Amino acid sequence: MALTTPRTMPGVLELLPREQIAFQSMLDAIRRGFEVYGFVPIETPAIEFAEVLLTKSGGETERQVYFVQSTGALEQAGRPEHALRFDLTVPLARYVAEHERELAFPFRRYQMQRVYRGERAQRGRFREFYQCDIDVIGKDTLSVRYDAEIPAVIHAVFSALDIGGFTIQLNNRKLMRGFFEGLGIGDSERQLLVLREVDKLDKRGAEHVRGVLTGEPFGLSADAADQIMRFVEVRSRSLADGHAKLDALGAGTETFEQGRAELREVLDTVAAFGVPETAVALNLSIARGLDYYTGTVYETTLNDHPGIGSICSGGRYDNLAGNYTKSRLPGVGISIGLTRLFWQLREAGLVHAADSSVQVLVTQMEATRLPDCLALAQALRAAGIATEVALDGGKLGKQLKYADRAGIRFAIVAGESEWARDAVAVKDLRRGEQFEVPRAELVQALKTHLVRAQVKPA
Amino acid sequence: MALTTPRTMPGVLELLPREQIAFQSMLDAIRRGFEVYGFVPIETPAIEFAEVLLTKSGGETERQVYFVQSTGALEQAGRPEHALRFDLTVPLARYVAEHERELAFPFRRYQMQRVYRGERAQRGRFREFYQCDIDVIGKDTLSVRYDAEIPAVIHAVFSALDIGGFTIQLNNRKLMRGFFEGLGIGDSERQLLVLREVDKLDKRGAEHVRGVLTGEPFGLSADAADQIMRFVEVRSRSLADGHAKLDALGAGTETFEQGRAELREVLDTVAAFGVPETAVALNLSIARGLDYYTGTVYETTLNDHPGIGSICSGGRYDNLAGNYTKSRLPGVGISIGLTRLFWQLREAGLVHAADSSVQVLVTQMEATRLPDCLALAQALRAAGIATEVALDGGKLGKQLKYADRAGIRFAIVAGESEWARDAVAVKDLRRGEQFEVPRAELVQALKTHLVRAQVKPA
Repeated sequence: MALTTPRTMPGVLELLPREQIAFQSMLDAIRRGFEVYGFVPIETPAIEFAEVLLTKSGGETERQVYFVQSTGALEQAGRPEHALRFDLTVPLARYVAEHERELAFPFRRYQMQRVYRGERAQRGRFREFYQCDIDVIGKDTLSVRYDAEIPAVIHAVFSALDIGGFTIQLNNRKLMRGFFEGLGIGDSERQLLVLREVDKLDKRGAEHVRGVLTGEPFGLSADAADQIMRFVEVRSRSLADGHAKLDALGAGTETFEQGRAELREVLDTVAAFGVPETAVALNLSIARGLDYYTGTVYETTLNDHPGIGSICSGGRYDNLAGNYTKSRLPGVGISIGLTRLFWQLREAGLVHAADSSVQVLVTQMEATRLPDCLALAQALRAAGIATEVALDGGKLGKQLKYADRAGIRFAIVAGESEWARDAVAVKDLRRGEQFEVPRAELVQALKTHLVRAQVKPA
Repeated sequence: MALTTPRTMPGVLELLPREQIAFQSMLDAIRRGFEVYGFVPIETPAIEFAEVLLTKSGGETERQVYFVQSTGALEQAGRPEHALRFDLTVPLARYVAEHERELAFPFRRYQMQRVYRGERAQRGRFREFYQCDIDVIGKDTLSVRYDAEIPAVIHAVFSALDIGGFTIQLNNRKLMRGFFEGLGIGDSERQLLVLREVDKLDKRGAEHVRGVLTGEPFGLSADAADQIMRFVEVRSRSLADGHAKLDALGAGTETFEQGRAELREVLDTVAAFGVPETAVALNLSIARGLDYYTGTVYETTLNDHPGIGSICSGGRYDNLAGNYTKSRLPGVGISIGLTRLFWQLREAGLVHAADSSVQVLVTQMEATRLPDCLALAQALRAAGIATEVALDGGKLGKQLKYADRAGIRFAIVAGESEWARDAVAVKDLRRGEQFEVPRAELVQALKTHLVRAQVKPA
């Protein structure tokens, strides 16, 4: 029979087991952070009605959509009825609108699932990837204090991930819009265009952006362009510096003042959440690509790896689900693109394949001792220690080599002399050490060693 | 703007948050069981090359496949290049063949992901559902002892799920095939056809099956049909009974004796794993629909809900990945269809919406005390207690009503008199009780109460 070449589609990140364990431990840490801050889980189907996903027709989004058809439907003409979700925000909007009467508000949900985009195959671009999202959705109103809770969650999660120093950067779209109004750029369409240009500042540089702003179609004065450039260069280094920088902006329009007041409250409340002030900074250049943010916006960058860009972004929006319901549902949230982040961290040498989640291999020397080996293993498992038994038996050297290759740290070895003494030998394969313990003390001894090895019991 | 009706595709199970928490706790328990038994995680992409997924062309499987196309590809004719996985077995085969040289064998993987089938919309039929699979894959050989480990894992997992008594039922395809050979049904195609008829025994009844076997095209003698009926009615109630029932079958062909020896070893070794003998039974009617099982086969049923059918099935196969590699990869595994199981348990009233994963709501009475509320919340979170703060403030009654509706068990309440005493009130919303504790003792007091309430800290 002709063999089919086993391969995955380009644009997916398939991991070997020890990488998957490292990835899973990041997912677990994120989930723990979300849960301890009082977010509840939801999951939505990957397949949705195309009509529901694509309420905003046309545009970039639609071109990246994967449509889904069962074999029967393939023969029919026309656009397929179903599609794969391309983010978790549209499904959230649909979910909240659909289940509105059954939910308690503020609705604080976390969702960690894969999303799908028909991207061109390209290094570092993923067609299937995890997003880890939190959002707080209010009914009619939602205090700006929730905007301050988000950085506290970001701080808890990225501290737990232990991937180095990071800075949570804040801006406010009202401050930005008010600022532009003050320069006579009152039209919201035009503001958006200017914001989009300003958003390119990091990529294209100040000169380029100034040139675009003073050229067609913007036609701003050199002074206005300079004011914009100075504005977007504002950064803060501490809570007091943040307030000082906001002071130094001078008076502005009503929208501007609203944005400034919100930013002040967010800065103060973030500090009250116990987030170190060095981890938080104003960055008045942040606009965020999405058009629907209306207040606070967030980006988070790794201090030692600015090239990776924002690893966690989001913001405040006025109305989540206007396409599905007449209820007004303001919210605030962020998203972590974990597949891409993991890939980048690995590229940068910042994550490594983990030890196996299997902590102990019980080797088997004589088949007649199998019941003793199994009893040992069951005692370890009952204590929560992830244990494998070498049921195939065979040469001890081969069994130990397997454990080493699989990343299993400890191996239990017992020949007749050990069984006769009612003892077993424990090999620490990482350290190349070995010690003997009485059988009755094995569980406790391994627990101690596992804690010392900082390997978490399952 | 016209509203789009928010709705999901038929055939998906979308859960409200408290149901999702119950579902997630089942996923967690299954994962914990798999890990403690020394299985390592993998995840594969939902989208694969259709050519890779559909190496066995045609048939039922292909008709249920969802094909995937990005917008650009829609305009092109022909069968789409990509499809969604319809199980976790084909992706496992592809994964092992693709990464063979990087894996350690025996390769013991668990995988808990959603799969997709273009089923007709029908109550209890799911188009998108979770499978939770384990498999042990050997290179060239794999001891039958691994067949005995699988029931130990099943027993651990379903005990942890706490859904009532269950029985792990065993059969062996060699025993069955050898038995048919003994009746002169030597042709393996014909054996398969008879096995398929026998597989309908529970659904159609003995009379129907006997009629089919003695009629065309089988044309068996009444005696042969009766022998088959007696054979498939064999059940055991204990380890000794299992051996006795196997003895009572009398002598058989070489294949038959091989199957009997395997079943004996599996029964004995399952007992050595510490699985209670009442939880395991021979059931010689189990054939399993899939054609590729070659040895031990498993089904698991709930003792008090036989109508639910098998909640966990699988078996031993000779060669996992013959479509992708020339390596011989024998294996043994099982699958839990968790979405369908959850749905059935819910229908039977056996699972209920869980308490919220949020354990404590810190209410807010005066805005000036917000920093104190936040400090309290942070202390609880640092102790691993999932905590939400009512950042919107508002009337206390409304805040408590929210906690009750969201399923949050404990609420912290502190007015000026409590703050003045450096104390807070704790309301147990489930019991309708309230007590006061000094602020410094709050974390410890809540930990004690949460343990008592058997609510797991995050």
